[in-house]
Amino acid sequence: MDRRTRLCISLAARPSDVGTRFHNFLYAELGLNFVYKAFTTGDLAGAVTGIRALGIRGCGVSMPYKQDVLPMLDGLDPSAEAIGAVNTIVNDDGTLTGYNTDVLAVQALLPVGTGRSALVAGSGGMASAVVAALRRSGFDDIVIAARNEEAGPALAERCGARWVPDPGGHRADVLVNATPIGMAGADPDAAVADPAFPRAAVSAAHTVVDVVASPPRTPLIALAEEFGVRTVTGDAVMALQAAEQFRLYTGTRPDDDQVRRAREYSRRT
Amino acid sequence: MDRRTRLCISLAARPSDVGTRFHNFLYAELGLNFVYKAFTTGDLAGAVTGIRALGIRGCGVSMPYKQDVLPMLDGLDPSAEAIGAVNTIVNDDGTLTGYNTDVLAVQALLPVGTGRSALVAGSGGMASAVVAALRRSGFDDIVIAARNEEAGPALAERCGARWVPDPGGHRADVLVNATPIGMAGADPDAAVADPAFPRAAVSAAHTVVDVVASPPRTPLIALAEEFGVRTVTGDAVMALQAAEQFRLYTGTRPDDDQVRRAREYSRRT
Repeated sequence: MDRRTRLCISLAARPSDVGTRFHNFLYAELGLNFVYKAFTTGDLAGAVTGIRALGIRGCGVSMPYKQDVLPMLDGLDPSAEAIGAVNTIVNDDGTLTGYNTDVLAVQALLPVGTGRSALVAGSGGMASAVVAALRRSGFDDIVIAARNEEAGPALAERCGARWVPDPGGHRADVLVNATPIGMAGADPDAAVADPAFPRAAVSAAHTVVDVVASPPRTPLIALAEEFGVRTVTGDAVMALQAAEQFRLYTGTRPDDDQVRRAREYSRRT
Repeated sequence: MDRRTRLCISLAARPSDVGTRFHNFLYAELGLNFVYKAFTTGDLAGAVTGIRALGIRGCGVSMPYKQDVLPMLDGLDPSAEAIGAVNTIVNDDGTLTGYNTDVLAVQALLPVGTGRSALVAGSGGMASAVVAALRRSGFDDIVIAARNEEAGPALAERCGARWVPDPGGHRADVLVNATPIGMAGADPDAAVADPAFPRAAVSAAHTVVDVVASPPRTPLIALAEEFGVRTVTGDAVMALQAAEQFRLYTGTRPDDDQVRRAREYSRRT
């Protein structure tokens, strides 16, 4: 630590240690003079003012600040503009730009040139990021399956997709689970057993994406593997979005092995 | 580093590494979950807003912010109120209190009950801190010797002291050098040779204080030692003001040996 050390931070209602450990591990690994610290705040505008005034290099943004922070920034990267939600702020000499590295990561992991149709389960923030990534990758036939009868149709309308309350009976080249279904502990009675999509849809798909990172092998991923369908795990999405954030802050791209070890270290709390 | 790690910072026009190294050394030594980082800013009010919004625990304040920051705080400790200058901000759950640990340190190092008269060389911020410390210690006959014909009389009037342009011919129980005279490199032709006070004043004093910290053994301190007069070095003042700041932030008082080693480490840059 010296006067040249750059500070990156995160803002969350309830900060975890994951980002702190991930970024600080890679700073040490790559010999970068940075330090990362998680914060919470009761004054988002004041925190953003502080980021500018103190020259804090970057800031991860979690719920509930991802939308509220929009008017406080100087500009939005297309990844954030597409969904109106920021999870990463980059400070270039006082100019704050908002990014969404969930969109960037999902987009980078989607198959290229192997289909145009997608079926997305969920209607929350992550579903919104997924649909934006699909659109940016050229998918033009997108169905959103969501039980929520307000958020589902609203998201569909916003991005020119169709809404259905349930994925049953639907098929698509790419299936994406953007719900907590399959998450460890999310629903101990049911979630572990049931995949987010029916067997018929999974067996007919080219690629199955799950945004649930823990466990990496959700029932959906296990089912896709059973059918020999290409999979993208939530673990891979999370790793890539974190690595994108790291690259935006430092200008340095960690390699896959470094990201893997940083992810392992960051979860060992 | 985890989500419970407290951040302390400093604000200076041109940050050095000394504070960063001093505080981080003692955090490690004492096993405290704190981290310290130096900042500069072009927006002092924004930086103070950030301190509040991010819950930054403490902030060292250097030139030129020591006076400008006053109206941005919620309260002043008497040490800062006495001279209208803050070098330390403590954030208690969003309530910012300004302290001046230079005043606290000089006061703690002054002799008790051995005299009432003092002769202070200098009219800058440190001289102001010294006079406040003398007043708080019960000294009621204070002469300020300063060549600056504006700052000298102004300081004297502000604190009920007398001003003289030159210390020559004056005597006092306590002599305090609050000028750069004797500082390494301050004036290579003259400073190393000439002490800040005449020999006659030094020999007649009970205690001689020098705020010049580098070298610790200034010509004034050397002269006082020659006469067997009690001395307080600038090194001791600096160490105690930093230790006071550390205690205000952490609630933990480092012992003399820890402060000595932290000081040594902080200057090894």
